[in-house]
Amino acid sequence: MTATVDSSVTQFQTCIDACNRCMQACEECLISCLKEPDVQARIHCINMLRDCANICASASQWMSRGSMYAKQICQLCATICEACATECAKFQDAHCKACADECRKCSDECRRMAG
Amino acid sequence: MTATVDSSVTQFQTCIDACNRCMQACEECLISCLKEPDVQARIHCINMLRDCANICASASQWMSRGSMYAKQICQLCATICEACATECAKFQDAHCKACADECRKCSDECRRMAG
Amino acid sequence: MTATVDSSVTQFQTCIDACNRCMQACEECLISCLKEPDVQARIHCINMLRDCANICASASQWMSRGSMYAKQICQLCATICEACATECAKFQDAHCKACADECRKCSDECRRMAG
Amino acid sequence: MTATVDSSVTQFQTCIDACNRCMQACEECLISCLKEPDVQARIHCINMLRDCANICASASQWMSRGSMYAKQICQLCATICEACATECAKFQDAHCKACADECRKCSDECRRMAG
Repeated sequence: MTATVDSSVTQFQTCIDACNRCMQACEECLISCLKEPDVQARIHCINMLRDCANICASASQWMSRGSMYAKQICQLCATICEACATECAKFQDAHCKACADECRKCSDECRRMAG
Repeated sequence: MTATVDSSVTQFQTCIDACNRCMQACEECLISCLKEPDVQARIHCINMLRDCANICASASQWMSRGSMYAKQICQLCATICEACATECAKFQDAHCKACADECRKCSDECRRMAG
Repeated sequence: MTATVDSSVTQFQTCIDACNRCMQACEECLISCLKEPDVQARIHCINMLRDCANICASASQWMSRGSMYAKQICQLCATICEACATECAKFQDAHCKACADECRKCSDECRRMAG
Repeated sequence: MTATVDSSVTQFQTCIDACNRCMQACEECLISCLKEPDVQARIHCINMLRDCANICASASQWMSRGSMYAKQICQLCATICEACATECAKFQDAHCKACADECRKCSDECRRMAG
């Protein structure tokens, strides 16, 4: 048994890219949400975005290193991305719509990785 | 439903402290393993230590913010800490024994948090 | 030249502990700031708290591994902690006062480490 | 004064992408270095790769959020990437050459960002 699976790195690439994009979308959405007039209605969304950005960054790094726990972190990432997409979809502004879209794509990729 | 549970922060403290100590023990053990003459026998251990240090740092930060996913990340942290303890226990040097001990304590705390 | 300095780990302990405490204080202050009625006046503070929590977590991890860049990351951590303390000190609530206090202590420790 | 500069996100994109690629190259090079027969000659390189992967991940995330400290973290990232490129360039295998190349590109992008 080895901790890393080199040959998997390439097959991870689509998911790594999705995680990187989702991390960025969450960070951008978060700073925009903080500036919205209804920021007080967005507290739960902001907290989701923080967790989502972080788990995406971790998943990207763990897949890059071929971690033997890549599937488990992608499983958790999929769950959080899906919840974050649902939360962002409640708001009508462009940054929330864009972020919900990236979250859904990332959730799909991570679920495929974890499956 | 709220994303954060302030009142839980205090009850998280024992687990936060265990995660901080385990992160540090893993980092110290890792740099020591890299210097051992039998480093080639320790590759799996070194890879485990990296994942373990990272998930402990994340778990500590997510509990500090009262994340609604604190339990899930602690669940994964418990799994990885336990596997890391098993791996470190295979080696006889002081740093691996110390690290295995911290990993076991952290695994116990995280499992209690997640349960 | 080596990348790690084992004997320094002990001398880093005070600073590692300060960084861990400051990370936690920033995370706790951030979730509390998000719930305050004047959250819109706290956007800059919230953004500072995020950067501060992150750099403290990184500094703690890099000191634990005896990184040859521990001084540089502590230098940046000191700068950010000081700015975060100044920002938190503008607010009268208990969590901002407690956080400003931890930020100042951490800034002092990091500056001493970097010096 | 604001903590975030939305309009800069687009101008950060080249540097964010370079950091993401460099993080991945460092992680891939690290797991490959650990498997090389001369792993004991690569301890300094392995330690450099860890710091480099981490600072690249942080720089990517801080630029994504338009942090007011994006320039400072990119400055440190440039320094570490350059040192990591120099270290990787000492080895003849394909993964070290590829990583040295990504590190140099990322160092250039980060220096431009910080300048």
